[in-house]
Amino acid sequence: MPLAIDHAFRDPELLRQALTHRSFGTPHNERLEFIGDAVLNCVIALRLYHRFPGLPEGELSRVRAHLVNRDTLARLARGLGLGAALRLGEGEAKSGGADRASTLADALEAVFGAVAEDGGFAAAGHVIDGVFADLLRDADPAALGKDPKTRLQEFLQARRTALPEYQIVATRGDAHAQSFVVECRIGALDLTAKGEGSSRRSAEQDAAAHALAELQAPGRG
Amino acid sequence: MPLAIDHAFRDPELLRQALTHRSFGTPHNERLEFIGDAVLNCVIALRLYHRFPGLPEGELSRVRAHLVNRDTLARLARGLGLGAALRLGEGEAKSGGADRASTLADALEAVFGAVAEDGGFAAAGHVIDGVFADLLRDADPAALGKDPKTRLQEFLQARRTALPEYQIVATRGDAHAQSFVVECRIGALDLTAKGEGSSRRSAEQDAAAHALAELQAPGRG
Repeated sequence: MPLAIDHAFRDPELLRQALTHRSFGTPHNERLEFIGDAVLNCVIALRLYHRFPGLPEGELSRVRAHLVNRDTLARLARGLGLGAALRLGEGEAKSGGADRASTLADALEAVFGAVAEDGGFAAAGHVIDGVFADLLRDADPAALGKDPKTRLQEFLQARRTALPEYQIVATRGDAHAQSFVVECRIGALDLTAKGEGSSRRSAEQDAAAHALAELQAPGRG
Repeated sequence: MPLAIDHAFRDPELLRQALTHRSFGTPHNERLEFIGDAVLNCVIALRLYHRFPGLPEGELSRVRAHLVNRDTLARLARGLGLGAALRLGEGEAKSGGADRASTLADALEAVFGAVAEDGGFAAAGHVIDGVFADLLRDADPAALGKDPKTRLQEFLQARRTALPEYQIVATRGDAHAQSFVVECRIGALDLTAKGEGSSRRSAEQDAAAHALAELQAPGRG
């Protein structure tokens, strides 16, 4: 199982365990995930603290949350080829477990935990620096700290484009567990994007995020 | 400001900053608190991982949450004499800021952050080991993982004592922000304890916690 991280395990059993999903049997990776999550949050906190000397605590938290979350970790795990190295139970493997975001994110955290256990905190820091190199380099508190609607508005204002209009196009579920579907229309760019959420506000944010993703996709405009 | 921790600062300005509340002015301790919180959670995670080799991840999380929380940190901070070392704005000082749990807890985390910044992760680990020595030694997943009502019930069952009765004795506030006061009575021990919470359930848990604290206080029974 060649995993693209810069650490040679003294105890390869730790790596093996980090890559073992609970559906495969014990020992599985959940305890290593516990320490890996803590080590990862700590390393990223220290890096951001030094990288952004003037940034208030709340902003540091927000930037970290954008770097350390399930979807980002899953994407990084895919980049390392982690899915192919996972040991999954038969049912889990057949149902696509090797590409499940939560499974990949958890296993990547477990790998960080295994490195910390094998080589200490500094070794884990070194591996995390490698895996997060691009994200740490490109981290931009000015963009990351803001919600999607604000970022979309600023994106459009910078291009002197009329602001988007949001409209509820559907509601689902009964009153206790309602879900809203909102459309975000940017007439001047002939773009509409949909979003869904448990409140009008969160559905609008979701729609704005989709519109932004569309506008920032490589190849557009 | 003699603080009872085992670290000699190379850069005493870091300690000074860790003890500076935002009401005093800048630079204050909030950025150091951000890294201190991360370092503390990481160190405790690593210690619990080794201390309890068989404990599942969920239990490790629960035990950590019992060690790393505002009230425990405030108590530890008081034990270190941290309140007297705090630098507070005038208004904050007059309103009792030096003994406010959140202020003390935040400052203690900031001190851990300052040590990490001054001497590295291992130095912070050493200081945290000292401050948490008793709590780490006495940590008991069997007890800690359970809520106060369950622990009180088990405490009483082990002593063949009749179980407690809970009763709402007051409600406060209007319907939107209601608060319940619950009394926990243990007739056989002639003990009543009160608890308060935003739901009946949380008020009962609070009352059970107070009853347990009373029963386990040194000198009782």
